[in-house]
Amino acid sequence: MARATGLEVTGLLSSKAQRAGPGWFGVPRSAEGRISLLGGFPEPSSLPREEILECARLALERDGVWALEYGATRGYELLVEQLLVKLRRDQGIAATPEQVLITAGASQALGLLVDALCDPGDVVLSEEPTWMGAVRIFRAAGVEVRPVPLGAQGIELDALAAILRELAAGGRRPKLLYLIPTFQNPTGVTMPLAARRELLALAYEHQLLVIEDDAYYDLRYEGERVPPLRALDDRGHVAYLGTFSKIMAAGMRLGWIVADPALVAAVAGLKPEGGTSPFAGAVAAQFCATGMLLEHVAELRVIYRERRDAMLRALSETMPEGVTWTRPEGGFFIWLTLPPGASAARVAERAAAAGVDVMPGSACSFFSSGDSALRLCYSFATTEQIGEGIARLAEAIREELAA
Amino acid sequence: MARATGLEVTGLLSSKAQRAGPGWFGVPRSAEGRISLLGGFPEPSSLPREEILECARLALERDGVWALEYGATRGYELLVEQLLVKLRRDQGIAATPEQVLITAGASQALGLLVDALCDPGDVVLSEEPTWMGAVRIFRAAGVEVRPVPLGAQGIELDALAAILRELAAGGRRPKLLYLIPTFQNPTGVTMPLAARRELLALAYEHQLLVIEDDAYYDLRYEGERVPPLRALDDRGHVAYLGTFSKIMAAGMRLGWIVADPALVAAVAGLKPEGGTSPFAGAVAAQFCATGMLLEHVAELRVIYRERRDAMLRALSETMPEGVTWTRPEGGFFIWLTLPPGASAARVAERAAAAGVDVMPGSACSFFSSGDSALRLCYSFATTEQIGEGIARLAEAIREELAA
Repeated sequence: MARATGLEVTGLLSSKAQRAGPGWFGVPRSAEGRISLLGGFPEPSSLPREEILECARLALERDGVWALEYGATRGYELLVEQLLVKLRRDQGIAATPEQVLITAGASQALGLLVDALCDPGDVVLSEEPTWMGAVRIFRAAGVEVRPVPLGAQGIELDALAAILRELAAGGRRPKLLYLIPTFQNPTGVTMPLAARRELLALAYEHQLLVIEDDAYYDLRYEGERVPPLRALDDRGHVAYLGTFSKIMAAGMRLGWIVADPALVAAVAGLKPEGGTSPFAGAVAAQFCATGMLLEHVAELRVIYRERRDAMLRALSETMPEGVTWTRPEGGFFIWLTLPPGASAARVAERAAAAGVDVMPGSACSFFSSGDSALRLCYSFATTEQIGEGIARLAEAIREELAA
Repeated sequence: MARATGLEVTGLLSSKAQRAGPGWFGVPRSAEGRISLLGGFPEPSSLPREEILECARLALERDGVWALEYGATRGYELLVEQLLVKLRRDQGIAATPEQVLITAGASQALGLLVDALCDPGDVVLSEEPTWMGAVRIFRAAGVEVRPVPLGAQGIELDALAAILRELAAGGRRPKLLYLIPTFQNPTGVTMPLAARRELLALAYEHQLLVIEDDAYYDLRYEGERVPPLRALDDRGHVAYLGTFSKIMAAGMRLGWIVADPALVAAVAGLKPEGGTSPFAGAVAAQFCATGMLLEHVAELRVIYRERRDAMLRALSETMPEGVTWTRPEGGFFIWLTLPPGASAARVAERAAAAGVDVMPGSACSFFSSGDSALRLCYSFATTEQIGEGIARLAEAIREELAA
């Protein structure tokens, strides 16, 4: 008798899994001799290894075994407490524990929020270009994304207002607006204060829930801080996402939601694992409580400012006529726009062949459009690598323009 | 002008969030003078605090910063490697890295699998009574659960076969069968080998995907090991779930799926946070690699066997006529059945009033049925507390029978 060939799994998958497609498995441990201007990863040598070990010791000594037991779904208690202190001090956000949920990074936070808010076919609004993780999350959810263009002042409010009016006229209410108002991923653009107030006014007028992804807020290298939308919102319209990934260590996988208590409770209802790693949470709580977080962020600002400056300098020195780029005041990213006719995908391919990895802008688009721009990340490579990488990229662009 | 009252969040929630309801927030740090026979929590003083700190040191020294960076979606590489060694050695399961996904506990594993497999309205099969977390997950998914009764040999195969035939006759194919064949939660029952082989034959005949939740396998206190279904399955029909929560520390929030590579990839596609905590994963990898895991499990077997024995002894000594209970060879749970007419919910209330917390069986049912049984957990309370707790519970049962 012939042996059965086994179960055909693909025929069993849910609509969501079919929309999402298989997961990424490919985060490499090293760029293997390549220059990576690709991923928004913290600089490896900057990671606070000794401090985190010390925090593990403090957490296990001070908190006893509670770092090792199941914890509250909201998150490790001391971390929630420390996060509230941090948000008040650094972000100007006043929050209560009932408004907080600790998550596995801001990425899980967005995934859960979309799960809690959206059915397939629902309309959501988002800046475009945006974080490629958000593109994947919205695609998996099967929602209808209405992209809103982005300008030098962040999301274009006239375009947003027009879309909101059009939807209202058609009797459709969008479930949410997703945006990254500070050091936007991928463009590096920051919305000024006045624009933020206008955005909130629009949100109030249209009863719109705003998801503010603020992963980079603490990493400002120049200029004055602009308050997060959540700090300006007095009507509970903003769900605020943040992360320890960029300011402590991505490997902790700790992020947070600050939102309306009813929304937080609904999100928690879709989190079968309960509280996100009490162990990692207890360590992060000590990182905050001891003041190590503030010290570390101060160091990171120095490191990343140098790299941003190195990249901006290299761009000025090497890029051919017609290429333009943003000048971020913080965060990890520069958005480079090619002259008309040049293909960012082809440039990325040419650069890759020359050992430099960059992200074509289409990866940051809901409809894989936008072949005119590239995202450049200066967080991972050294200043020397950045100089060399940008020089090779410029060469790749020249080849593309000549072709 | 009157101030707006804010956004009404409940009107925005997705169907899934509405089905799930708000999340649990209530895991308390201590039972506050109460005797808890309620939650399946590891015994606090047994948690390997010093060992875990030592593992954190080893992880950060040996693996450098890679424990602190984003990691592969599959999970921390060294943990995957160590898990494969452990599964081969202890479970008799041969697996490759492509078949593995590290998750935030077995609970997230089940949540993600259901997300990857089920649309609302799909049919799924499950033992009943079962783990209350599974009840919540299936409810949130909006699936049609067909419960299969459980006997002294585990899931009743005749009943399962009849349901499978009935579904096939109606042209409906169930997406999956969920069960806990070893030291079942909540009954403590273990399926014998012959029944496991019969179950697999049924699964092959009906092209049925089986989700085997094996959270307690390593905690056997007597009798011979029975191989997991996954170890007996040579056709890829079994998705195997396990966890470090019971054998290392729940606070790590680390579990795993071993399944068909295509199913693992689909699940990974629904995990926006990427790899589960590389930091916790690196620590757990050292816990395995140093041999601490085996030592710790050996200690746990001694601790929990004593507690199980204390509970069984106390039950024999105190329970009124007509009360019956299971005698588990491992795991955390005893299932106590009341005489006809007595209400488990009322007994649980009476016991709670006397300072003893137990779980009414209806919490382990998809339709909140089963008011005749209680789940008793012996993992958390001390042997003294267990003796006292069971005596008070017996008194509560006597009161209920007299009422």
